[in-house]
Amino acid sequence: MRIARYGEPGQERPFAADRDGVWRDLSPLVDDVTGATLQTVLGADLAALPEVHPQGRVGPPLAGIGKVICVGLNYRDHAAETGAAIPDEPILFMKAPDTVVGATDPVLIPLGSTKTDWEVELAVVIGREARYLSSPADSAAHIAGYAISHDVSERAFQLERGGQWDKGKNCETFNPFGPMLVSADEVADPQALRLRLSVNGVVMQDGTTADMVFGVDHLVWYISQFMVLRPGDVINTGTPAGVALGRADAPYLRPGDVVEIEIDGLGAQRQEVAQA
Amino acid sequence: MRIARYGEPGQERPFAADRDGVWRDLSPLVDDVTGATLQTVLGADLAALPEVHPQGRVGPPLAGIGKVICVGLNYRDHAAETGAAIPDEPILFMKAPDTVVGATDPVLIPLGSTKTDWEVELAVVIGREARYLSSPADSAAHIAGYAISHDVSERAFQLERGGQWDKGKNCETFNPFGPMLVSADEVADPQALRLRLSVNGVVMQDGTTADMVFGVDHLVWYISQFMVLRPGDVINTGTPAGVALGRADAPYLRPGDVVEIEIDGLGAQRQEVAQA
Repeated sequence: MRIARYGEPGQERPFAADRDGVWRDLSPLVDDVTGATLQTVLGADLAALPEVHPQGRVGPPLAGIGKVICVGLNYRDHAAETGAAIPDEPILFMKAPDTVVGATDPVLIPLGSTKTDWEVELAVVIGREARYLSSPADSAAHIAGYAISHDVSERAFQLERGGQWDKGKNCETFNPFGPMLVSADEVADPQALRLRLSVNGVVMQDGTTADMVFGVDHLVWYISQFMVLRPGDVINTGTPAGVALGRADAPYLRPGDVVEIEIDGLGAQRQEVAQA
Repeated sequence: MRIARYGEPGQERPFAADRDGVWRDLSPLVDDVTGATLQTVLGADLAALPEVHPQGRVGPPLAGIGKVICVGLNYRDHAAETGAAIPDEPILFMKAPDTVVGATDPVLIPLGSTKTDWEVELAVVIGREARYLSSPADSAAHIAGYAISHDVSERAFQLERGGQWDKGKNCETFNPFGPMLVSADEVADPQALRLRLSVNGVVMQDGTTADMVFGVDHLVWYISQFMVLRPGDVINTGTPAGVALGRADAPYLRPGDVVEIEIDGLGAQRQEVAQA
């Protein structure tokens, strides 16, 4: 199943399509797609719902996100380009849910920013509570599906302003998410997805989730040892090489730039960059 | 005004008292106390609402918290006891809102934890959106009020497991909050509040908000340069000296311990510590 929400910010309506590709209006079934309604949506008989052609702005495919947990340096090539060692265990940091915007909403460069950077990431959406899972083999039962996350990052705020990364990760509009949530049963192998990101048409990142240091199942199990993962929580699983921080010419984002992102089977994002 | 919520987790009902000390049922006015209803509550004529005697479990005084921003090493004596330098500018990290529990709910020691520690903190509750404030003098207009926050911390997870503090700050039950939210007009000077924390009756922390490195107004202004502060967001403003991490005998919390916390004018917390 593919789930998407269309409408102006805060007024999105929920839609879903099965493998037949026909979009259906979820409004008769649920008020919105949230952690609380995710299992109802995933178990729905879509054929019983009205056929529609969703139009307008695409919002994030999930409302009421509880928390966004991010994994740092989770691709060997990205760790190398930033001069960091490959981590012995996952590095975790947080994005506030109010950084989440739609896949085609503008990304705003913060006031005072000189190093706003891009990061294409595979996002995991939690479908059932995960608390102290016994092993990575238990993780799949807790995953609702996958989406594209753009983990926008301000490198000076992240690395030069006081020691914790969160300061450069929580700026307004810093987490474009979607355009759709694809249920886990439609993603044959989350560790075999190509991720691509371009800026103004020039390919900057072209990686594969096969190169993750810690795979999705490991991450869900690992994070569940430190915090409770609840339905509607999102995990940003890290980015492959190719960010501005890792490039000799440091081509950080500027107003007017256009970022385009794709992950196999999860759709595409496109953001125009503007000054806050 | 003092605002509190009583009832079982997820079923709390909202109450408020003016300076006359008479508690009133807010249910005829608002469904709950959230960022969206905070101004309605603060502007309410309580005398028009039913007088009540709230009973039972006290929940967090605010529902639907959007984000919890924490300030690290914000008291000189605490920075010293942890061997850290006094920061040049505020250190920020995040707690997920689902770590928030009531002021007398149990605190759970995570599985595998050996270094669960306490931190009494003054919490600032945001009442109006703050985005790129021009100066600290503008902060007061954005503050709804104050509460006690217990920023429970697992030091091994925070400091020995991969470089970012969030891993030791987001465990289940790690943010007892309340018992009440006291509106800003009833806190004469937020920089002149005594904070005390004891474990099993032994005073461990006894400080004053006068010793903050960066005061409340500075923090709200500063944070607003990096992220949008929205109504119902919470800032944990740091802890004074006296945590287990800073003591030669490292007396980290164990099941059966009792933590008691007070801040002048903001009430008291009491938590029994249990194993997760």
